[in-house]
Amino acid sequence: MLSKSQISFLKSLQQKKFRIEHGAFIVEGYKSIVDFANSAYSIVTIYYTNAIDPKLLKLSGKINFNEISLTDLEKISSLKSPQDIIALVKIPDWPVLNASSLKNKFAIVLDGIQDPGNIGTIIRTADWFGINHIICSADTVDVYNPKVVQATMGSLARVNIYYVELTHFLKDIKLPIFGAALDGSNIYKTDFGNEGLVVMGNEGNGLRPEIIDLVQHAVTIPRTGRAESLNVGIATAIFCSEIKRNSYK
Amino acid sequence: MLSKSQISFLKSLQQKKFRIEHGAFIVEGYKSIVDFANSAYSIVTIYYTNAIDPKLLKLSGKINFNEISLTDLEKISSLKSPQDIIALVKIPDWPVLNASSLKNKFAIVLDGIQDPGNIGTIIRTADWFGINHIICSADTVDVYNPKVVQATMGSLARVNIYYVELTHFLKDIKLPIFGAALDGSNIYKTDFGNEGLVVMGNEGNGLRPEIIDLVQHAVTIPRTGRAESLNVGIATAIFCSEIKRNSYK
Repeated sequence: MLSKSQISFLKSLQQKKFRIEHGAFIVEGYKSIVDFANSAYSIVTIYYTNAIDPKLLKLSGKINFNEISLTDLEKISSLKSPQDIIALVKIPDWPVLNASSLKNKFAIVLDGIQDPGNIGTIIRTADWFGINHIICSADTVDVYNPKVVQATMGSLARVNIYYVELTHFLKDIKLPIFGAALDGSNIYKTDFGNEGLVVMGNEGNGLRPEIIDLVQHAVTIPRTGRAESLNVGIATAIFCSEIKRNSYK
Repeated sequence: MLSKSQISFLKSLQQKKFRIEHGAFIVEGYKSIVDFANSAYSIVTIYYTNAIDPKLLKLSGKINFNEISLTDLEKISSLKSPQDIIALVKIPDWPVLNASSLKNKFAIVLDGIQDPGNIGTIIRTADWFGINHIICSADTVDVYNPKVVQATMGSLARVNIYYVELTHFLKDIKLPIFGAALDGSNIYKTDFGNEGLVVMGNEGNGLRPEIIDLVQHAVTIPRTGRAESLNVGIATAIFCSEIKRNSYK
């Protein structure tokens, strides 16, 4: 049973300002909650209906378990079809980005991505391809947005996300900087080497001019058909795939 | 000005049964409407607010133009942020799939894709890569669903979509059949040749067993990280990219 104020608190976490105020966010669904439980994140409380046996989660640590009615669960869920289990998870302190941790690997850089589904899919795709660092401009959508969390399918628990002042960051970094552009060199003829950053631009506007200036290698996915553009999640995935295919040559 | 019954009719087209009953669907936004106007589709009526000058569309033919209030436009829109212009478009007769039109090219086959955003993105991606034929199992989501139309960003006007009884179709076709699977051969070492079908499975379940039996080449995007799966739109894009990269060797 949840009180009105508990419901109101949990619902408020769908908004960024309340997530910041309370330092917490919501994860929904069995699989995602298991992924967060097996990560560095701290789960505070698990709310579940009698359709779920929380013992199956095999969780240890200081987690509160709270069996609630389906009606209450539907009230706090952000999903159209709630999944009988919701976790309240602590937002960790934003990790400090140590440039040396980016050596000899690839990281994705997002310049003002706005759509929660897009960044969620990007995090999931990065996790598939073993890319563990995503660096976001300060105005990129918050990854603890419930739609982002949902779209990552648990991968948010494993990928390190950083929010930075992007121009400063790219100016200082000593790594090859690749950027997705419409007029760059052919991605299929690009040698990505063994380390670097791949910068992806905003859905409508692409990369900001001041970011383009910092990109050393503008790279294009050649178009053979007639669509005006590719979705940014799709384009990011093709970059990840091209980077990783080198290791299978 | 729209009557109550007009509003009710236009809103009803968000549901498949009314789209079938009336043989019409809705396209929203300036760019998409231009794409449909420059295609084989027939636009019946364009509804617009005074924020738009429909003459800019430079459309000819028997199209009705109907200036309406923003309030009415918001009522008939399926978008959170309506775009001041909505077209009522005729659903054409489903094209008959002529197997010879698939020779010497690639087509995407969808086995029970359910998410409108996924199929919309797949259509847009196919259009980018010049893949003009998408063949769907009968239970794949309807492409005239407003969320699909929106996600295609106008590409639906250019890509040919077919709904077929998939088992029969794959049994009869004389083309190489590739299928996305978790235990197939490495996509980066796969020679796709110059023609064939690429079959992508349902979001939760992958390919149906009876479809797997008909796949000649099971192909896998190798995982180097820890995500359990890739989004089907992402996986399809990586297949499209691998097929097309051959032409840049």
